[in-house]
Amino acid sequence: MLPFKPFDRAATFQTVAIIGKYMAAGIQQSLSDIADFLAGAGLKVVLEAETAQNVTLPGVPIMTPAEIGHHADVAIVVGGDGTMLGIARQLAPYNVPLIGINQGRLGFMTDIPQEGMVQVLADMLGGKLDSEQRTLLEGTVLRDGEPIFHALAFNDVVVARGSTTGMTELKVEVDGHFMYNQRSDGLIISTPTGSTAYALSAGGPLLHPSLSGMVLVPIAPHALSNRPIVVPDTCTVVVEIMGGRDISVNFDMQGLASLQHHDRIFIRRSAHTITFLHPQGWSYYDTLREKLHWNEYPSVAGKLK
Amino acid sequence: MLPFKPFDRAATFQTVAIIGKYMAAGIQQSLSDIADFLAGAGLKVVLEAETAQNVTLPGVPIMTPAEIGHHADVAIVVGGDGTMLGIARQLAPYNVPLIGINQGRLGFMTDIPQEGMVQVLADMLGGKLDSEQRTLLEGTVLRDGEPIFHALAFNDVVVARGSTTGMTELKVEVDGHFMYNQRSDGLIISTPTGSTAYALSAGGPLLHPSLSGMVLVPIAPHALSNRPIVVPDTCTVVVEIMGGRDISVNFDMQGLASLQHHDRIFIRRSAHTITFLHPQGWSYYDTLREKLHWNEYPSVAGKLK
Amino acid sequence: MLPFKPFDRAATFQTVAIIGKYMAAGIQQSLSDIADFLAGAGLKVVLEAETAQNVTLPGVPIMTPAEIGHHADVAIVVGGDGTMLGIARQLAPYNVPLIGINQGRLGFMTDIPQEGMVQVLADMLGGKLDSEQRTLLEGTVLRDGEPIFHALAFNDVVVARGSTTGMTELKVEVDGHFMYNQRSDGLIISTPTGSTAYALSAGGPLLHPSLSGMVLVPIAPHALSNRPIVVPDTCTVVVEIMGGRDISVNFDMQGLASLQHHDRIFIRRSAHTITFLHPQGWSYYDTLREKLHWNEYPSVAGKLK
Amino acid sequence: MLPFKPFDRAATFQTVAIIGKYMAAGIQQSLSDIADFLAGAGLKVVLEAETAQNVTLPGVPIMTPAEIGHHADVAIVVGGDGTMLGIARQLAPYNVPLIGINQGRLGFMTDIPQEGMVQVLADMLGGKLDSEQRTLLEGTVLRDGEPIFHALAFNDVVVARGSTTGMTELKVEVDGHFMYNQRSDGLIISTPTGSTAYALSAGGPLLHPSLSGMVLVPIAPHALSNRPIVVPDTCTVVVEIMGGRDISVNFDMQGLASLQHHDRIFIRRSAHTITFLHPQGWSYYDTLREKLHWNEYPSVAGKLK
Repeated sequence: MLPFKPFDRAATFQTVAIIGKYMAAGIQQSLSDIADFLAGAGLKVVLEAETAQNVTLPGVPIMTPAEIGHHADVAIVVGGDGTMLGIARQLAPYNVPLIGINQGRLGFMTDIPQEGMVQVLADMLGGKLDSEQRTLLEGTVLRDGEPIFHALAFNDVVVARGSTTGMTELKVEVDGHFMYNQRSDGLIISTPTGSTAYALSAGGPLLHPSLSGMVLVPIAPHALSNRPIVVPDTCTVVVEIMGGRDISVNFDMQGLASLQHHDRIFIRRSAHTITFLHPQGWSYYDTLREKLHWNEYPSVAGKLK
Repeated sequence: MLPFKPFDRAATFQTVAIIGKYMAAGIQQSLSDIADFLAGAGLKVVLEAETAQNVTLPGVPIMTPAEIGHHADVAIVVGGDGTMLGIARQLAPYNVPLIGINQGRLGFMTDIPQEGMVQVLADMLGGKLDSEQRTLLEGTVLRDGEPIFHALAFNDVVVARGSTTGMTELKVEVDGHFMYNQRSDGLIISTPTGSTAYALSAGGPLLHPSLSGMVLVPIAPHALSNRPIVVPDTCTVVVEIMGGRDISVNFDMQGLASLQHHDRIFIRRSAHTITFLHPQGWSYYDTLREKLHWNEYPSVAGKLK
Repeated sequence: MLPFKPFDRAATFQTVAIIGKYMAAGIQQSLSDIADFLAGAGLKVVLEAETAQNVTLPGVPIMTPAEIGHHADVAIVVGGDGTMLGIARQLAPYNVPLIGINQGRLGFMTDIPQEGMVQVLADMLGGKLDSEQRTLLEGTVLRDGEPIFHALAFNDVVVARGSTTGMTELKVEVDGHFMYNQRSDGLIISTPTGSTAYALSAGGPLLHPSLSGMVLVPIAPHALSNRPIVVPDTCTVVVEIMGGRDISVNFDMQGLASLQHHDRIFIRRSAHTITFLHPQGWSYYDTLREKLHWNEYPSVAGKLK
Repeated sequence: MLPFKPFDRAATFQTVAIIGKYMAAGIQQSLSDIADFLAGAGLKVVLEAETAQNVTLPGVPIMTPAEIGHHADVAIVVGGDGTMLGIARQLAPYNVPLIGINQGRLGFMTDIPQEGMVQVLADMLGGKLDSEQRTLLEGTVLRDGEPIFHALAFNDVVVARGSTTGMTELKVEVDGHFMYNQRSDGLIISTPTGSTAYALSAGGPLLHPSLSGMVLVPIAPHALSNRPIVVPDTCTVVVEIMGGRDISVNFDMQGLASLQHHDRIFIRRSAHTITFLHPQGWSYYDTLREKLHWNEYPSVAGKLK
């Protein structure tokens, strides 16, 4: 339904952007190594502007995310999932594919270890790669019928109480159908990507990245039967503030505080998507197993004879 | 991707099958009322064979589910969700749409109350109706590479231990990718329809019926991070028995017991679908709210001032 | 270990305090009825001061909670669980037993319906009653080693983030033993009484009121294995703020906001207890069943044949 | 209330029993090392009879668990939690304290690593030790009012369905009060020790070993509000089979299958307890943290800035 622009495997990479975790210590060497490798391979290299506050790559032009969006064929991100999240949302309108290299420990999105990364990048830029597309949400807050805030979310939209002495009371509609009035600490509307983040902590299910769905996860709901519900990502979800104080809405990390009663938040899938590139043979489940320690068991005496 | 045969709203109903809950007391009158109404409206009426063991409708031909599949344009089911489940699986190959009338309390699938049902049916057969399509799973058990069992599931496929002194150890692959080895009481692979049934009891999320997904819900898993995971319904899930005794697999209620180590169960979406017809304006969320008591709260002193 | 003053069944009630839900509409008649009954039975009646702002009982003396604590032999509370919670914490130092009459729907603590209450009270004051004792928590916040806040909690002590963009990072020690560093939305330390309140919403277990324990329930914890843990109520729990912004602590509803890093909250069972009086034959489980709808099932097709 | 025989710290150890994991490979050397150390320290050493089928300790007398119960002052167990569980239940009537040495990975009960164990044992037998007492459950199955089975459980009593096509329907009473009728896969009644075993997998809370409580944890309950409930361990729990097929009850691993409708299982705390000895400074929370990976987080992008 949405005009997805699928990743074109036959495209050749000519301009490569490099992005590093903001103000991260010890990232200079990695970015230099990557830049040297790319230049040596005859590719044009550019450095993202915020990264350039911390990292020096002599002779490499500096670009804003928007400029990267217009000029780069691929972006290599060195950092953690937070870094990836930030740049992904900024590059979403331009559909520049992203490669994630983890600085430190494995991330859900930054899945390539720094050690040996140059060889991995060589293989990938040579065409040995897998691609996948991730969806984003877009949301608009309406007050008295007028839009007062608009943002994209790659992980989730979170409507939640600010103070600890109260509860939110939220009315939720999906495609014009009344779903429920919910009393809780808040409600998370999450993409598949966000299903391994806050939504997981609040008791939500994992959603495979290629699932065309989003999940509504209540936070500490008053009614014990208020379970997470997965709806098609073609739905429009409307959350109306019915009660509670100091309620805010956050799109990943961009927030609007002090929502008023009867403010309404419209949430639907964005027309944009984000393409992640992985080394050939990559599997989402490998990352899940590693991150969620699926191979480690607490011993259960009496059951494992 | 699958050749869904969408419900054709322009089709006219000429032959209507009536199906009642097996051996249910007090169902005679309802079925008679429905048959009389249909005949009076100039429609051809047929009665399902098992129902006819318990109910007499003079002059109404008796048909097996397969015959109904070939001849009827719509089937009216009076009973509970279990009745609906049973006949739906039998009619799945024929794509006969179903109308569910609850005998007793509201069901997830039998959503029309008996009281006033004739008027509701009149409206629906006159075209004032909504339709939705539900997916089924099909599964095959392979032993030493040979298929030894095949069945459809409308709710879920459940692989579970039989004896209480042990655990299952299951290896799960999705589209050829290793997902995990899981120690648990068992694993539920559920359709959206089944997400309100056993999968919900085991901690799974609700899936909207129109979501193109299925959910894997572990039952009492050993690893606390073995959370439910929703995958696209285009996936093939393979469950291999790695350990445990007295393990069985059940497709809704048709089971194969005494699985052996290294038996493999292949599960994917069936090419068949089931069409449910509802009164115009029907909403899935209305049923959820009613069935899950979403409007009833335990009082939480100190939070609801 | 603590000098519990058990309820003395042989004591006779001479002075009875009446307390009503603050500013509740339509409570005048109930309180008048109760006062008339008590006066007619030769008992001395007093009215709580805040209640007296809304309700007039001619000839009945007005007392503050502290005065009630010194002079009354029993207090009759008409309202909801919130009303009971508020007065219980104020009367805790005086061990005045409480009788709870629900105004509106059944509460966990206000378990006597208004209809027929006079007869129930007559029976109870005549000695046909059951009693139970509930524990409270007391907590002290230390900053740089100095106490800056102290309060009692009848339900729970909640340490939680205020803003929605962050997490708390809490270090928890029990009796001087390091338990864990926890990243989450917050942590609830709950009495058995509070186990049916916020702790339940956050995934905690029910604790029978006579259990000598308290439960630590993490709110949306980052680590999936951070499960609720029940410890003896002889323990001292210390929560230290290690990270996060806008963190607050709340004792039932009395809070201290803007905690600083390394503030420490000491929590232990109070030396005070609260005595609830119930009609003879009262059972905690009857209330649980009613409040938690334990007799109502969502139908699970395919499992309940 | 029960005649607990607390561990007498002043007692001196004269006779020490050695028990090894049944038929475990590579355990000979460890047991020999322990026996040599003990003999060298002037202590009398005995070897458990089943262990002796697999391990040879020249000159060391062989004893049954009952003989060990009468003659040994302490038992050293080398194996896993399952080994500890098995011997603990057999020694429970004799109150012989246990020391657990893990063969392989850390257990909840076998907390001393083999490496360096001789020095640890030297310290412990010299008096540098901590002790704790664990409770057991005892249960009796009554059919038509007559006892037909009796057993002890150190972890849990589990009433559960055998076949996968049905549910149990159980009526639960506590101290003569009706708690609920529950439809589920089964019900776990667990000690604090068992709260880290099967009960944890089924969603139960952790109970500190010194808590005077037991927890009832439903397995995949039909009613979403059927939450785990912790009751004092002075309670008698009665579970009556009301519906379902192939239902069995298991006490740790000793089971009785084919329960009949209206069979009743009486469960209460045993008069016996088990004493565990630990190296001085031992903390239960250290084991929990290690076993439950409380120091490892899945990264939650967007929350941990």
